[in-house]
Amino acid sequence: MEIDNRIINLAAMVKAILVQRKETLSCCESLTGGLFGASICCIPGASDCFKGGVITYCDAVKVAVGVSQKTLDDHTAISGECAQEMALAASRFTQSDWAVSFTGNAGPTAQDGAPVGLVFIGVAHRGQVRAFRYQLEGDRSQVRLDAVREGLRLLLKAIADE
Amino acid sequence: MEIDNRIINLAAMVKAILVQRKETLSCCESLTGGLFGASICCIPGASDCFKGGVITYCDAVKVAVGVSQKTLDDHTAISGECAQEMALAASRFTQSDWAVSFTGNAGPTAQDGAPVGLVFIGVAHRGQVRAFRYQLEGDRSQVRLDAVREGLRLLLKAIADE
Repeated sequence: MEIDNRIINLAAMVKAILVQRKETLSCCESLTGGLFGASICCIPGASDCFKGGVITYCDAVKVAVGVSQKTLDDHTAISGECAQEMALAASRFTQSDWAVSFTGNAGPTAQDGAPVGLVFIGVAHRGQVRAFRYQLEGDRSQVRLDAVREGLRLLLKAIADE
Repeated sequence: MEIDNRIINLAAMVKAILVQRKETLSCCESLTGGLFGASICCIPGASDCFKGGVITYCDAVKVAVGVSQKTLDDHTAISGECAQEMALAASRFTQSDWAVSFTGNAGPTAQDGAPVGLVFIGVAHRGQVRAFRYQLEGDRSQVRLDAVREGLRLLLKAIADE
Protein backbone atom coordinates (compact mmCIF):
# COMPACT_ATOMS: atom_id res chain seq x y z
CA MET A 1 0.00 0.00 0.00
CA GLU A 2 1.55 3.25 -1.10
CA ILE A 3 0.97 6.68 0.40
CA ASP A 4 1.46 8.23 -3.03
CA ASN A 5 2.41 11.72 -4.14
CA ARG A 6 -1.18 12.82 -4.60
CA ILE A 7 -1.68 12.28 -0.85
CA ILE A 8 1.73 13.68 0.10
CA ASN A 9 1.09 16.85 -1.94
CA LEU A 10 -2.30 17.40 -0.29
CA ALA A 11 -0.78 16.75 3.15
CA ALA A 12 1.99 19.27 2.43
CA MET A 13 -0.63 21.88 1.45
CA VAL A 14 -2.62 21.22 4.64
CA LYS A 15 0.50 21.56 6.76
CA ALA A 16 1.64 24.78 5.05
CA ILE A 17 -1.78 26.45 5.31
CA LEU A 18 -2.34 25.48 8.94
CA VAL A 19 1.12 26.65 9.98
CA GLN A 20 0.54 29.93 8.15
CA ARG A 21 -2.77 30.33 10.00
CA LYS A 22 -1.22 29.19 13.31
CA GLU A 23 -3.95 26.53 13.63
CA THR A 24 -3.73 22.94 14.77
CA LEU A 25 -5.08 19.61 13.51
CA SER A 26 -6.06 16.21 14.86
CA CYS A 27 -7.80 13.09 13.59
CA CYS A 28 -10.11 10.29 14.69
CA GLU A 29 -9.70 7.23 12.48
CA SER A 30 -11.66 4.05 12.18
CA LEU A 31 -11.36 2.28 8.79
CA THR A 32 -8.19 4.22 7.92
CA GLY A 33 -6.58 2.98 11.15
CA GLY A 34 -3.99 5.75 11.39
CA LEU A 35 -3.34 6.31 7.69
CA PHE A 36 -4.44 9.95 7.74
CA GLY A 37 -2.14 10.77 10.66
CA ALA A 38 0.68 8.78 9.07
CA SER A 39 0.22 10.79 5.86
CA ILE A 40 0.33 14.18 7.59
CA CYS A 41 3.44 13.07 9.47
CA CYS A 42 5.22 12.37 6.17
CA ILE A 43 5.69 16.14 5.95
CA PRO A 44 8.79 17.45 7.79
CA GLY A 45 7.69 19.85 10.53
CA ALA A 46 4.23 18.29 10.78
CA SER A 47 4.45 18.84 14.54
CA ASP A 48 4.05 22.58 13.87
CA CYS A 49 0.35 21.91 13.28
CA PHE A 50 -0.50 18.22 13.91
CA LYS A 51 -1.21 17.39 17.55
CA GLY A 52 -2.22 13.74 17.14
CA GLY A 53 -5.47 11.86 17.39
CA VAL A 54 -7.21 8.63 18.19
CA ILE A 55 -7.49 5.39 16.26
CA THR A 56 -10.98 4.30 17.21
CA TYR A 57 -11.01 0.96 15.42
CA CYS A 58 -13.54 -0.65 17.76
CA ASP A 59 -16.70 0.87 19.19
CA ALA A 60 -15.44 0.71 22.78
CA VAL A 61 -12.57 3.06 21.93
CA LYS A 62 -14.97 5.38 20.10
CA VAL A 63 -16.97 5.58 23.34
CA ALA A 64 -13.80 5.98 25.44
CA VAL A 65 -12.88 9.14 23.51
CA GLY A 66 -16.39 10.59 23.66
CA VAL A 67 -18.69 9.16 20.99
CA SER A 68 -22.07 8.44 22.61
CA GLN A 69 -23.28 4.87 22.89
CA LYS A 70 -26.72 6.12 21.83
CA THR A 71 -25.35 7.36 18.51
CA LEU A 72 -23.73 3.96 17.89
CA ASP A 73 -26.96 2.17 18.84
CA ASP A 74 -29.25 4.45 16.80
CA HIS A 75 -27.11 5.00 13.70
CA THR A 76 -24.28 2.37 13.85
CA ALA A 77 -20.62 3.34 13.71
CA ILE A 78 -20.78 3.72 9.93
CA SER A 79 -22.88 6.88 9.82
CA GLY A 80 -22.57 10.60 9.39
CA GLU A 81 -23.71 11.04 12.98
CA CYS A 82 -20.83 8.91 14.25
CA ALA A 83 -18.32 10.67 11.97
CA GLN A 84 -19.44 14.03 13.37
CA GLU A 85 -19.05 12.89 16.97
CA MET A 86 -15.66 11.34 16.21
CA ALA A 87 -14.35 14.61 14.75
CA LEU A 88 -15.65 16.64 17.69
CA ALA A 89 -14.19 14.08 20.12
CA ALA A 90 -10.72 14.25 18.54
CA SER A 91 -10.84 18.03 18.57
CA ARG A 92 -11.70 18.03 22.28
CA PHE A 93 -9.23 15.29 23.24
CA THR A 94 -6.30 17.01 21.53
CA GLN A 95 -7.53 20.60 21.91
CA SER A 96 -6.99 21.23 18.22
CA ASP A 97 -8.63 23.84 15.96
CA TRP A 98 -9.45 21.31 13.25
CA ALA A 99 -10.20 17.59 13.30
CA VAL A 100 -10.95 15.08 10.56
CA SER A 101 -12.66 11.74 11.19
CA PHE A 102 -13.07 8.57 9.14
CA THR A 103 -15.57 5.76 9.58
CA GLY A 104 -16.70 3.23 7.00
CA ASN A 105 -16.31 -0.20 5.54
CA ALA A 106 -13.01 -0.88 3.75
CA GLY A 107 -14.04 -4.44 2.97
CA PRO A 108 -13.63 -7.17 2.00
CA THR A 109 -17.28 -7.93 2.98
CA ALA A 110 -20.43 -5.94 3.82
CA GLN A 111 -20.69 -5.04 7.49
CA ASP A 112 -23.79 -4.19 9.57
CA GLY A 113 -25.67 -3.37 6.39
CA ALA A 114 -22.92 -1.07 5.10
CA PRO A 115 -21.59 -2.02 1.65
CA VAL A 116 -17.85 -2.14 0.97
CA GLY A 117 -16.64 1.37 0.17
CA LEU A 118 -19.27 3.28 2.17
CA VAL A 119 -17.31 5.93 4.07
CA PHE A 120 -18.27 8.95 6.18
CA ILE A 121 -15.74 11.71 6.75
CA GLY A 122 -16.24 14.37 9.40
CA VAL A 123 -14.57 17.78 9.58
CA ALA A 124 -14.75 19.73 12.83
CA HIS A 125 -13.66 23.29 13.46
CA ARG A 126 -14.06 24.90 16.87
CA GLY A 127 -17.24 23.10 17.82
CA GLN A 128 -18.81 23.20 14.35
CA VAL A 129 -18.88 19.94 12.41
CA ARG A 130 -20.07 18.48 9.12
CA ALA A 131 -19.99 14.94 7.76
CA PHE A 132 -19.75 13.83 4.13
CA ARG A 133 -20.82 10.52 2.62
CA TYR A 134 -18.79 8.66 0.00
CA GLN A 135 -19.23 5.44 -1.91
CA LEU A 136 -15.64 4.58 -2.82
CA GLU A 137 -14.53 1.95 -5.34
CA GLY A 138 -11.75 -0.62 -5.31
CA ASP A 139 -10.17 -3.00 -2.82
CA ARG A 140 -9.45 -2.48 0.87
CA SER A 141 -6.23 -0.53 0.24
CA GLN A 142 -7.79 1.67 -2.40
CA VAL A 143 -10.82 2.52 -0.26
CA ARG A 144 -8.60 3.51 2.67
CA LEU A 145 -6.20 5.56 0.54
CA ASP A 146 -9.08 7.29 -1.28
CA ALA A 147 -10.73 8.07 2.06
CA VAL A 148 -7.53 9.76 3.29
CA ARG A 149 -7.23 11.75 0.07
CA GLU A 150 -10.86 12.89 0.28
CA GLY A 151 -10.35 13.83 3.93
CA LEU A 152 -7.40 16.04 3.02
CA ARG A 153 -9.43 17.63 0.20
CA LEU A 154 -12.41 18.27 2.48
CA LEU A 155 -10.15 19.84 5.06
CA LEU A 156 -8.54 22.16 2.49
CA LYS A 157 -11.98 23.22 1.22
CA ALA A 158 -13.26 23.80 4.75
CA ILE A 159 -10.24 25.95 5.58
CA ALA A 160 -10.73 27.92 2.35
CA ASP A 161 -14.40 28.51 3.25
CA GLU A 162 -13.50 29.87 6.67
CA MET B 1 6.02 6.00 1.18
CA GLU B 2 5.15 2.36 0.77
CA ILE B 3 3.85 0.01 3.43
CA ASP B 4 5.67 -2.86 1.74
CA ASN B 5 5.17 -6.61 1.86
CA ARG B 6 7.73 -7.10 4.61
CA ILE B 7 5.51 -5.02 6.88
CA ILE B 8 2.25 -6.52 5.56
CA ASN B 9 3.56 -10.06 6.14
CA LEU B 10 4.57 -9.26 9.73
CA ALA B 11 1.21 -7.56 10.34
CA ALA B 12 -0.61 -10.62 8.99
CA MET B 13 1.39 -12.86 11.35
CA VAL B 14 0.58 -10.62 14.32
CA LYS B 15 -3.11 -10.63 13.45
CA ALA B 16 -3.25 -14.42 12.96
CA ILE B 17 -1.43 -15.18 16.22
CA LEU B 18 -3.45 -12.73 18.31
CA VAL B 19 -6.75 -14.00 16.92
CA GLN B 20 -5.66 -17.57 17.62
CA ARG B 21 -4.80 -16.56 21.20
CA LYS B 22 -7.99 -14.48 21.53
CA GLU B 23 -5.88 -11.47 22.57
CA THR B 24 -6.18 -7.82 21.63
CA LEU B 25 -3.76 -5.11 20.50
CA SER B 26 -3.43 -1.34 20.58
CA CYS B 27 -0.77 1.26 19.83
CA CYS B 28 0.52 4.63 20.96
CA GLU B 29 2.38 6.40 18.17
CA SER B 30 4.50 9.49 18.10
CA LEU B 31 7.03 9.64 15.22
CA THR B 32 5.16 6.97 13.26
CA GLY B 33 1.99 9.09 13.47
CA GLY B 34 -0.44 6.23 12.88
CA LEU B 35 1.65 4.11 10.52
CA PHE B 36 1.68 1.07 12.83
CA GLY B 37 -2.11 1.11 13.17
CA ALA B 38 -2.51 1.72 9.45
CA SER B 39 -0.28 -1.30 8.76
CA ILE B 40 -2.21 -3.64 11.05
CA CYS B 41 -5.46 -2.46 9.45
CA CYS B 42 -4.17 -3.52 6.01
CA ILE B 43 -5.04 -7.07 7.09
CA PRO B 44 -8.69 -8.06 6.48
CA GLY B 45 -10.35 -8.90 9.80
CA ALA B 46 -7.88 -6.74 11.77
CA SER B 47 -10.81 -5.76 13.98
CA ASP B 48 -10.76 -9.30 15.41
CA CYS B 49 -7.70 -8.26 17.44
CA PHE B 50 -6.90 -4.56 16.90
CA LYS B 51 -8.86 -2.20 19.15
CA GLY B 52 -7.21 1.09 18.15
CA GLY B 53 -4.85 3.47 19.85
CA VAL B 54 -3.63 7.00 20.24
CA ILE B 55 -1.47 9.16 18.00
CA THR B 56 0.43 11.19 20.59
CA TYR B 57 2.33 13.44 18.23
CA CYS B 58 2.67 16.31 20.70
CA ASP B 59 3.52 16.11 24.40
CA ALA B 60 0.12 17.48 25.49
CA VAL B 61 -1.64 14.49 23.91
CA LYS B 62 0.87 12.12 25.53
CA VAL B 63 -0.12 13.62 28.88
CA ALA B 64 -3.83 13.53 27.99
CA VAL B 65 -3.66 9.77 27.51
CA GLY B 66 -1.67 9.16 30.69
CA VAL B 67 2.07 9.78 30.22
CA SER B 68 3.32 11.70 33.27
CA GLN B 69 4.60 15.25 32.84
CA LYS B 70 7.45 14.32 35.18
CA THR B 71 8.66 11.60 32.81
CA LEU B 72 8.63 14.09 29.93
CA ASP B 73 10.48 16.67 32.05
CA ASP B 74 13.05 14.23 33.44
CA HIS B 75 13.72 12.09 30.36
CA THR B 76 12.18 13.97 27.35
CA ALA B 77 9.61 12.39 25.05
CA ILE B 78 12.33 10.54 23.17
CA SER B 79 13.26 8.07 25.88
CA GLY B 80 12.67 4.51 26.92
CA GLU B 81 10.81 5.77 29.98
CA CYS B 82 8.34 7.67 27.78
CA ALA B 83 7.94 4.71 25.41
CA GLN B 84 7.08 2.49 28.38
CA GLU B 85 4.46 4.90 29.71
CA MET B 86 3.00 5.33 26.22
CA ALA B 87 2.55 1.58 25.78
CA LEU B 88 0.96 1.21 29.20
CA ALA B 89 -1.29 4.20 28.52
CA ALA B 90 -2.54 2.77 25.22
CA SER B 91 -3.17 -0.57 26.84
CA ARG B 92 -5.24 1.08 29.59
CA PHE B 93 -7.09 3.47 27.26
CA THR B 94 -8.18 0.70 24.90
CA GLN B 95 -8.28 -2.14 27.45
CA SER B 96 -6.12 -4.30 25.21
CA ASP B 97 -3.90 -7.23 26.13
CA TRP B 98 -0.93 -5.94 24.13
CA ALA B 99 0.23 -2.45 23.20
CA VAL B 100 3.14 -1.19 21.14
CA SER B 101 4.47 2.38 21.36
CA PHE B 102 6.79 4.46 19.19
CA THR B 103 8.68 7.62 20.08
CA GLY B 104 11.74 9.03 18.40
CA ASN B 105 13.17 11.44 15.90
CA ALA B 106 12.33 10.72 12.24
CA GLY B 107 14.24 13.78 11.09
CA PRO B 108 15.17 15.76 9.12
CA THR B 109 17.08 17.48 11.98
CA ALA B 110 18.23 16.64 15.51
CA GLN B 111 15.63 17.37 18.17
CA ASP B 112 16.10 18.00 21.91
CA GLY B 113 19.50 16.34 21.75
CA ALA B 114 18.11 13.26 19.98
CA PRO B 115 19.84 12.45 16.68
CA VAL B 116 17.81 11.60 13.58
CA GLY B 117 16.90 7.92 13.68
CA LEU B 118 16.92 7.50 17.47
CA VAL B 119 13.76 5.55 18.24
CA PHE B 120 12.35 3.87 21.35
CA ILE B 121 9.72 1.17 21.00
CA GLY B 122 7.69 -0.05 23.96
CA VAL B 123 5.80 -3.33 24.26
CA ALA B 124 3.25 -3.72 27.04
CA HIS B 125 1.41 -6.85 28.07
CA ARG B 126 -1.05 -6.83 30.94
CA GLY B 127 0.77 -4.24 33.03
CA GLN B 128 4.28 -5.46 32.19
CA VAL B 129 6.31 -3.31 29.81
CA ARG B 130 9.72 -3.13 28.18
CA ALA B 131 11.28 -0.52 25.91
CA PHE B 132 13.90 -1.06 23.23
CA ARG B 133 16.33 1.49 21.78
CA TYR B 134 17.15 1.71 18.08
CA GLN B 135 19.41 3.91 16.00
CA LEU B 136 17.79 3.64 12.56
CA GLU B 137 19.29 4.77 9.26
CA GLY B 138 17.86 6.58 6.26
CA ASP B 139 15.46 9.43 5.59
CA ARG B 140 12.25 10.34 7.40
CA SER B 141 10.15 7.73 5.54
CA GLN B 142 12.69 4.97 6.04
CA VAL B 143 13.07 5.65 9.76
CA ARG B 144 9.29 5.53 10.27
CA LEU B 145 8.81 2.39 8.17
CA ASP B 146 11.73 0.63 9.87
CA ALA B 147 10.32 1.60 13.27
CA VAL B 148 6.98 -0.01 12.39
CA ARG B 149 8.71 -3.15 11.14
CA GLU B 150 10.81 -3.41 14.30
CA GLY B 151 7.69 -2.86 16.42
CA LEU B 152 5.92 -5.74 14.70
CA ARG B 153 9.02 -7.94 15.17
CA LEU B 154 9.30 -7.04 18.85
CA LEU B 155 5.63 -7.83 19.36
CA LEU B 156 5.94 -11.22 17.68
CA LYS B 157 8.98 -12.05 19.84
CA ALA B 158 7.23 -10.91 23.00
CA ILE B 159 4.21 -13.06 22.20
CA ALA B 160 6.47 -16.05 21.49
CA ASP B 161 8.22 -15.54 24.86
CA GLU B 162 4.91 -15.56 26.75
